[in-house]
Amino acid sequence: MHDTFTHRISTRLLAGRAPAVVGLDPRLDALPVAYSEGAAESDTGACSLHDDSADGPAQRIVAFYRDAMPVLAEHAVAVKPNIAFFEVFGAAGYRAYEETCAVARAHDLPVIGDIKRGDIGSTAAAYAEAHCGIADAVTLHPYLGSDSIEPFLAYCRNQGTGAFVLVRTSNPSATEFQELDVGGATLSSRVADAVTRWGEAAGVDEFGYSPVGAVVGATYPAELAALRDRMPRAWLLIPGVGAQGGAVEDLGPAFDERGLGALVNQSRGVMQCFDPDDEDWKAQIERALVEFCESLREVASSR
Amino acid sequence: MHDTFTHRISTRLLAGRAPAVVGLDPRLDALPVAYSEGAAESDTGACSLHDDSADGPAQRIVAFYRDAMPVLAEHAVAVKPNIAFFEVFGAAGYRAYEETCAVARAHDLPVIGDIKRGDIGSTAAAYAEAHCGIADAVTLHPYLGSDSIEPFLAYCRNQGTGAFVLVRTSNPSATEFQELDVGGATLSSRVADAVTRWGEAAGVDEFGYSPVGAVVGATYPAELAALRDRMPRAWLLIPGVGAQGGAVEDLGPAFDERGLGALVNQSRGVMQCFDPDDEDWKAQIERALVEFCESLREVASSR
Repeated sequence: MHDTFTHRISTRLLAGRAPAVVGLDPRLDALPVAYSEGAAESDTGACSLHDDSADGPAQRIVAFYRDAMPVLAEHAVAVKPNIAFFEVFGAAGYRAYEETCAVARAHDLPVIGDIKRGDIGSTAAAYAEAHCGIADAVTLHPYLGSDSIEPFLAYCRNQGTGAFVLVRTSNPSATEFQELDVGGATLSSRVADAVTRWGEAAGVDEFGYSPVGAVVGATYPAELAALRDRMPRAWLLIPGVGAQGGAVEDLGPAFDERGLGALVNQSRGVMQCFDPDDEDWKAQIERALVEFCESLREVASSR
Repeated sequence: MHDTFTHRISTRLLAGRAPAVVGLDPRLDALPVAYSEGAAESDTGACSLHDDSADGPAQRIVAFYRDAMPVLAEHAVAVKPNIAFFEVFGAAGYRAYEETCAVARAHDLPVIGDIKRGDIGSTAAAYAEAHCGIADAVTLHPYLGSDSIEPFLAYCRNQGTGAFVLVRTSNPSATEFQELDVGGATLSSRVADAVTRWGEAAGVDEFGYSPVGAVVGATYPAELAALRDRMPRAWLLIPGVGAQGGAVEDLGPAFDERGLGALVNQSRGVMQCFDPDDEDWKAQIERALVEFCESLREVASSR
């Protein structure tokens, strides 16, 4: 299959695109005023948040993403909508998530659905059925082990989707469990070993990468190199640069000598880089994204 | 607050109700034929699954739960809709999840939203906002540590909701990470210690229980007693009896001497106990549920 998630990503990066993923974390108060004006979130509270009409908050978010997507499609290699921020708007928000994914895919922009699901086998199968048709790849929790991952591996093999398992997250309390010492290795490195196993079960593409990747936060650069070595066939999805404090220049060890192997996400630093009153928000997004891409190209080619 | 999730549960159990939770995992092919007839899941595929009309699959599920709910409200202490099985139906299914929760609450039946979410702080806050208004309690992943739990603790304190953190799940591969030896204790017991800490931060009700509970599978009865002792203030939500192989008679150690402290879930064994062609499905559900309640009353009063 040449239209698999990992194949599409590699082809684009080798053609010169930067490994930039733009996170879509919709917040009504961070939209340009032209989109949020008159949406009564703060006035009338929770009910209006769930308004499913064309004038409701969820559809205003879709309208914003629809207008911003050409810019993202021109520069980014993928988008990563985080479903949590859509679920705030209830079923209307869930529909907005589906529609945002569809808008990106209509621009031929791969979608990483940041859903962070994880459940026992029969339930994981339901999550896989629910989400692998909407997005090209998804993020998953490891705590329940192989049962919770396997239904997604079937989609990787049969539909060409990707999966990123949480290994080392970008948040401050990531250390509480993920750094626990498990017989001389951290828990996160044990999860990394499982990512390698799951990746072997899913196969490797012509570029040497498996569809089972790993989320590794930019906020812990010292562990990045070790985790890279531990998962040689895994794409790393790296959140945490920008607002969370991670620095792009620390990410060199995440890439291979071809500049493949890592995707770096920025959410707020791109999609909330403007003041809601700014009429030139689109130009500002493009400027922030181009700058992000340039810094990534530099670090990705540093080996 | 007397209308908190834990207070409502304790009051009902002390009044003689069984600690029975009914899991709602909707599957179109497991509905009575009167509800599924003509819903074209297998004929026309994925698109019709997302049909949001009154005749679409999601609304047929709501209709079934609406008709079944009086029986559940008469006997069970709570219901546990698993959102994965709703998400299969896309935004229509998400709406069906919201409506199913609302139907249960209209019957004064507490709702445990089995959402298994877990993300970094700002995203966890979005999940908490999205879900703590729909359900009375939710299930959460621990892998990201305190940041991912704290926004839910605020809802526990301020809105009286509950949270059940995954500690020891009921699936076969639960052992892969949860039983790893972390300095003389298993990972799941370290998570249990965190549940105790989070519970202390959220406060304890007049019955001695905190709003932060733990998911502990019935399929590993040997660990149940140890985890009970390790989390003396936590309600245990116990899945895995019935179809998954756990046995009610092994669950005695989960309860305190008042019969409080544990809620036992059964999904398929109650809600899929009938053949779809059976016209007396409601009587069959009631029979299965009453039997489940009787076995639970016995084991809950065994100390």
